[in-house]
Amino acid sequence: MDNDPLRPLRHSAAHIMAEAVLDLFPGTKFGIGPAIENGFYYDFELPRPVTPEDFPALEERMREIIRGKFNFEHSTQTVAQARASFRDQPFKLELIELIAKGELGLHGEEHAKPTDTVSIYQHDTFMDLCAGPHVHNTAQVPADAFKLLSIAGAYWRGSEKNPQLTRIYGTAWQTKQELDEYLWKLEEAKKRDHRKLGKELELFYFSDDIGPGLPLFAPKGEIVRYLMETYVREAQTRYGYQHVWTGHMVKEELYKKSGHYDNYRDSMFPPMVDDDITLRLKPMNCPSHMTLYNEMGLHSYRELPLRFAEFATLYRYEKRGELSGLARVRALTQDDCHVFCTEEQIESEFTRALNLIREVLNTYQFTAYQIRLSLRGEAGKYVQDDEKWTKATAALKKALDDNHVEYFVAEGEAAFYGPKADFIAHDALGRSWQLSTIQVDFIQPARLGCEYIAEDGSTKTPVLIHRAVTGATERFLAVLIEHLAGAFPLWLAPVQAKIIPIADRHNEYARAVEKQLQAQGLRVQVDARSERMNAKIRDAQLMKIPYMLVVGDKEADAGAVSVRLRTGEDLKAMPLEQFIGMAKKLADEKSMELK
Amino acid sequence: MDNDPLRPLRHSAAHIMAEAVLDLFPGTKFGIGPAIENGFYYDFELPRPVTPEDFPALEERMREIIRGKFNFEHSTQTVAQARASFRDQPFKLELIELIAKGELGLHGEEHAKPTDTVSIYQHDTFMDLCAGPHVHNTAQVPADAFKLLSIAGAYWRGSEKNPQLTRIYGTAWQTKQELDEYLWKLEEAKKRDHRKLGKELELFYFSDDIGPGLPLFAPKGEIVRYLMETYVREAQTRYGYQHVWTGHMVKEELYKKSGHYDNYRDSMFPPMVDDDITLRLKPMNCPSHMTLYNEMGLHSYRELPLRFAEFATLYRYEKRGELSGLARVRALTQDDCHVFCTEEQIESEFTRALNLIREVLNTYQFTAYQIRLSLRGEAGKYVQDDEKWTKATAALKKALDDNHVEYFVAEGEAAFYGPKADFIAHDALGRSWQLSTIQVDFIQPARLGCEYIAEDGSTKTPVLIHRAVTGATERFLAVLIEHLAGAFPLWLAPVQAKIIPIADRHNEYARAVEKQLQAQGLRVQVDARSERMNAKIRDAQLMKIPYMLVVGDKEADAGAVSVRLRTGEDLKAMPLEQFIGMAKKLADEKSMELK
Repeated sequence: MDNDPLRPLRHSAAHIMAEAVLDLFPGTKFGIGPAIENGFYYDFELPRPVTPEDFPALEERMREIIRGKFNFEHSTQTVAQARASFRDQPFKLELIELIAKGELGLHGEEHAKPTDTVSIYQHDTFMDLCAGPHVHNTAQVPADAFKLLSIAGAYWRGSEKNPQLTRIYGTAWQTKQELDEYLWKLEEAKKRDHRKLGKELELFYFSDDIGPGLPLFAPKGEIVRYLMETYVREAQTRYGYQHVWTGHMVKEELYKKSGHYDNYRDSMFPPMVDDDITLRLKPMNCPSHMTLYNEMGLHSYRELPLRFAEFATLYRYEKRGELSGLARVRALTQDDCHVFCTEEQIESEFTRALNLIREVLNTYQFTAYQIRLSLRGEAGKYVQDDEKWTKATAALKKALDDNHVEYFVAEGEAAFYGPKADFIAHDALGRSWQLSTIQVDFIQPARLGCEYIAEDGSTKTPVLIHRAVTGATERFLAVLIEHLAGAFPLWLAPVQAKIIPIADRHNEYARAVEKQLQAQGLRVQVDARSERMNAKIRDAQLMKIPYMLVVGDKEADAGAVSVRLRTGEDLKAMPLEQFIGMAKKLADEKSMELK
Repeated sequence: MDNDPLRPLRHSAAHIMAEAVLDLFPGTKFGIGPAIENGFYYDFELPRPVTPEDFPALEERMREIIRGKFNFEHSTQTVAQARASFRDQPFKLELIELIAKGELGLHGEEHAKPTDTVSIYQHDTFMDLCAGPHVHNTAQVPADAFKLLSIAGAYWRGSEKNPQLTRIYGTAWQTKQELDEYLWKLEEAKKRDHRKLGKELELFYFSDDIGPGLPLFAPKGEIVRYLMETYVREAQTRYGYQHVWTGHMVKEELYKKSGHYDNYRDSMFPPMVDDDITLRLKPMNCPSHMTLYNEMGLHSYRELPLRFAEFATLYRYEKRGELSGLARVRALTQDDCHVFCTEEQIESEFTRALNLIREVLNTYQFTAYQIRLSLRGEAGKYVQDDEKWTKATAALKKALDDNHVEYFVAEGEAAFYGPKADFIAHDALGRSWQLSTIQVDFIQPARLGCEYIAEDGSTKTPVLIHRAVTGATERFLAVLIEHLAGAFPLWLAPVQAKIIPIADRHNEYARAVEKQLQAQGLRVQVDARSERMNAKIRDAQLMKIPYMLVVGDKEADAGAVSVRLRTGEDLKAMPLEQFIGMAKKLADEKSMELK
């Protein structure tokens, strides 16, 4: 955000809005008004409540100020001068005292040095306590590229003990086109909200009887998650991963041994305590996979790498206020894997995971992803083993380079136990989501006593690579729903085709078509309601069903179906065999296309 | 057991053994010696430890007593007489006092009436406090059809506070052939013990670090359970069931509403308690499926039947002492389904479940199963709604008859909420296992407020049919391993073929064969160790791998493989394509054959 080139423009727009508010609502008291991502806000204590109906007048007044081409003038005032300048503004006076005492910095930081002077910006009639920067004059805020968006309540200085102010949010851009695009995205994001679509498409539900963050998947949602997981399982098998099953809980002691109890306890569900045992739901698989590795007996270097993948539902006690549909749940099904390997195998195993992840993200058309390579920083949280860090870092970089994969380096962002690569995908609205991850771990295998017999007969500790492809099924599905606006590709669509008889007398042929398509493994339904054809088509479109197969006399006579796409496109009548061939090919290829 | 016609014979064998023990171990004190399933035991306090090496001498002495053709003479003694008869037998004296006071019945029951007399049986020199019945004379215990089996410690009268006695177990039958068959089964059951085979075949493990009754499945075990579940899922889909996903826990309140909290609490894992919520692991799916049904909105009769199937791992807090490998676990994955339907649909839904279960049991070659139809008895635990019981019972019987399915009726064995049908399968050793079940439920849907709008516009409560096909994956796998002695059919075998190069120079061709087979979806491995070919074949046989594909110069030249079966049978060389065709066909058909 601090690097955002639009920050001065947006911050200036906040000042201009404040001037407009003061003009239209004389007597207004001002809080603060910073630039934020995509826009700005300002907090006010107003003589009367403001509503979105006031926005046009406020925006019009702002445009006048913009046209005035008033310079943003910077000056320094002594604390005494500033007290006089803001004598009618109690919130500003409070800030001046805090800044003077060094309890608040100019940019809002909580620790600063006491000072005799404060920084001031003024344009036209509006003076603000402000560190800047701003644009040169008000005309540099394009009059057609800003918009007031919404109103919210906000406690003064974020504390519930303080009065509640009125926060007005706005957005500002360099061009009208950018503004329009942003407004479209806002609108689109609302329409694509996976919580809304989840209900409309009958995918999943939450219930007070079950508990917060614990979704229930109805048949249409279950088939999607099943197909998603089946695809990753198939791909993992093809890439040489083996699957294991380790259930959903373990003795609490195991997490004391692994270190998770100390570092991760707050994210665990409460313990299940009996006289002779205390159990915890699994928040991650690694300790279970390492326990399985150990129980299988002594391993030889010949068996490595051993790759244990599992689709396990993990339970994390996320804060209730942070739960958000499937994007933030308490029950998350990771497509997790732990690779036990030698140090020499890090590079090839990293490459293997890299290629698997790239294949899967491409299938879902998350093509515009970035890879962040997180390396050790200077600070002390990192395991002290320079040789291992150097070797592993070199192996990861070489794997990325050899596979012609672009990445950016984030120094100091590594896990304490080793370097990692995260995949940040961008969805259709340009929002970024961290999905896949590959992490090298020098620490945990030794903690849980994992060993193998090396070629020279010595006992060694394997390196552990943690790896997730889509991350968690639930979260990936949330992203996917919003990315695709609920219009799943054919291979994932819960219902792939709706067969729509024109009149009741066509029901029989419709059933015959249904049977043939089902025998080919296609998920189809007949809409035999006594509704008009157009209503049936509209309903199928609302459910984002890829194909509507309309059947009447002509189709029945010809053994054909009239194919319409959910986009509205009409492919006209085609022989049933031809439709089957087309649909099966597109589904098998996991294509995003419908023709 | 009480109906066992061999009971008098086995009880008589116990007395004969006791006489033999007294002869060979003078001074022995006697506890009790009943008939049990397949045999008998007697508890002794012995002057010196007995070992299995003493068995031949004991058995020889028993045969002498048998040849003596001594009658089993019944008599009644007064308590005073009995005290004198058993003056040297402190355990018998204790029993006499208990029987006299009415604290113990003649057959061991804990509540009886005080009495002045006790029942006595005597043969040859051995007199016992005993209610009988016995055979007429010792010669009726066939001398060649009994065998002493094992020795165990047993506390007198089952209490840890009492002295530990030595229990000698024996088996007795009417013919030597029956004995031999039983001994073979015992031996075979030991060899087939799924806990032993589970480790040998690297299928699953238990770990003290995870907790009792919570299995860990290694890759070879996971693939078997995955294929088993995939098969049932495919069959369920074909039969019109839809799958749902409802996670692993719910709020405790839901179980209070459903009635499970009162009736099933002891079988639940301890609660997870936080300030504002108390959660329980799911011991069954029904309340979750009904909650999902309710959350989906108001249902119309047109939507029924709704069939919600789920492969959910359920958690039941079985007593630690009752856990037994996979046969009795605390984590069990049920192939559960709940059908919401109208009363009129009970018959057709029962038929649907019946046919699905029959198909699946036949696939696994559990062909000799019995169906127990459990109906309402006289006692009061049953829901009082005569019309519903009558209708449902008639529907179930009609479905069984119409499908030409044999069954036996068990009056008074129904669940309190409705009638049910259980499938009791018999394995290769003749042991019986209750696997599948179909249960009609008149109660729970009303408790959780499930409703639908009937054709007449009124609001009605659906009937719920609970249904499981294989029961639980873990338990079915335990039964399957013992049924098949670990030799999984081709479609389930974790490794379907081991490719065995004769010499190192054949490794390259072996790898090429591996690649081709893997591309066809077959699970194969190359054994490239520098071992002799025969050792590799033996190892593959021990792992019960269906095919060993030996490749040498001849095979490489001809593009062939020499095929050996795990049974030892040699199918000789065949073109690789021919092997692929054969293996794929057998696997697709889920055949039990390998050629």
